[in-house]
Amino acid sequence: MSGINAIGGEAVGGTLYGIGVGPGDVRYLTLRAAALIEKVDVIAYFAKRGRVGNARTIVTPILRTGLRELRLEYPLTDQIPAADPAYQAQIHNFYEASASEISAHLADRQSVGLLSEGDPFFYGSFMHMWRRLKGGYPVEVVPGVTGMSGCWTRANQPITWGDDILTVLPGTLDVETLAHHLAVTDAAVIMKLGRNLSKVRHAITRAGLLSRAIYVERGTMESERVAPLAEVADDSAPYFSVVIIPGNGRRL
Amino acid sequence: MSGINAIGGEAVGGTLYGIGVGPGDVRYLTLRAAALIEKVDVIAYFAKRGRVGNARTIVTPILRTGLRELRLEYPLTDQIPAADPAYQAQIHNFYEASASEISAHLADRQSVGLLSEGDPFFYGSFMHMWRRLKGGYPVEVVPGVTGMSGCWTRANQPITWGDDILTVLPGTLDVETLAHHLAVTDAAVIMKLGRNLSKVRHAITRAGLLSRAIYVERGTMESERVAPLAEVADDSAPYFSVVIIPGNGRRL
Repeated sequence: MSGINAIGGEAVGGTLYGIGVGPGDVRYLTLRAAALIEKVDVIAYFAKRGRVGNARTIVTPILRTGLRELRLEYPLTDQIPAADPAYQAQIHNFYEASASEISAHLADRQSVGLLSEGDPFFYGSFMHMWRRLKGGYPVEVVPGVTGMSGCWTRANQPITWGDDILTVLPGTLDVETLAHHLAVTDAAVIMKLGRNLSKVRHAITRAGLLSRAIYVERGTMESERVAPLAEVADDSAPYFSVVIIPGNGRRL
Repeated sequence: MSGINAIGGEAVGGTLYGIGVGPGDVRYLTLRAAALIEKVDVIAYFAKRGRVGNARTIVTPILRTGLRELRLEYPLTDQIPAADPAYQAQIHNFYEASASEISAHLADRQSVGLLSEGDPFFYGSFMHMWRRLKGGYPVEVVPGVTGMSGCWTRANQPITWGDDILTVLPGTLDVETLAHHLAVTDAAVIMKLGRNLSKVRHAITRAGLLSRAIYVERGTMESERVAPLAEVADDSAPYFSVVIIPGNGRRL
């Protein structure tokens, strides 16, 4: 991939790269991200037990053979609510250990590319490594196409027109908070659906927006699914899913 | 650029491509965007009179020689407020004429790549062409890294953590609306600053957020500037500028 590399630039030993890999389709990697994946000494990524890892899956088509991989496997926390201090302690310890593993490579003058779905600084787990490592090593963050951009693109729905206000809401919030924010915005994206899908549908209905809400699952991936939320009966949704409510602002 | 093209894919005659070109640094084009720019018959872009055009400037390093360019030049509306019906009529007529020009190429079985700063479906002028042409021609929209992603990346500020709510506000809104929304969100991005910068600073101050607000001008471009908003005395800002207020959500 000499062309990509000529534009995308080099990787420097001892540097941590936070690489946004976009919404799912490998063609939506940036030139800089693709060049770094081609050149870093080590590719690191988070993954759940028994899974390939979302970010790792996205870049599979362009990974070179023999590239050293650092798989950072989340502890099994499925049975513990995220608000529980026990969950937070486990995740904290996991992030501490992960930062140590990455740090060992950096101290050894290797370049490490930590993959991040979407954009690294937008709800990215990369941020938990970044805040631990930025004091000790050079860090470069490569912005990426967000998952929500991929989803509104595949839903064929411009999200904001003219002076529209866009509100991005985690589905983990309570019904009242969700409904209140939905009622006062022009356009919305609801992320982190998972087991919150029923609650999110309820909040959207309460805000009078169900007829405008579109459900997008795995936008830009092969298994993508786009449907009016009113027609989606599921109680839960996979990690890569969002609900979008497009704005109605000025058409010129 | 054979490598890019192999991954990025082909362009099809008679198709309109809405190509997100990202925040400014050419390395933040996606593989798909770069491949299309390499392959389309015509590159189209909006530009103000006397200017190269923002999107056209971004892709200059990868434009092939001899590529046919369709420059769509905005009418001179600097003296007319955007809310004035006279302004809206002029812009409407300009978009109608621009869609006709693009349509002529598509009807002639040429592929047209319309460049869009950032992401085409996020406040993009591309949307005004899309809604006029999608009924008559195949359209593919290529999502891009948004300008705001480029700006929070260069400000070295993760924008949202944990369950943070993000609100994106056009600076064109009135002070009361801005201050109200700022007061109830966790993180914010204020776009479309221009002549609204003083008003935006006033709204942020009123919401008690001035100490957290960061001004980013031309993020990811060579002439970028990052500064605490409290230290920016300017009354107006260039097109490529935003104010970000990073969230304070859960650190694990």
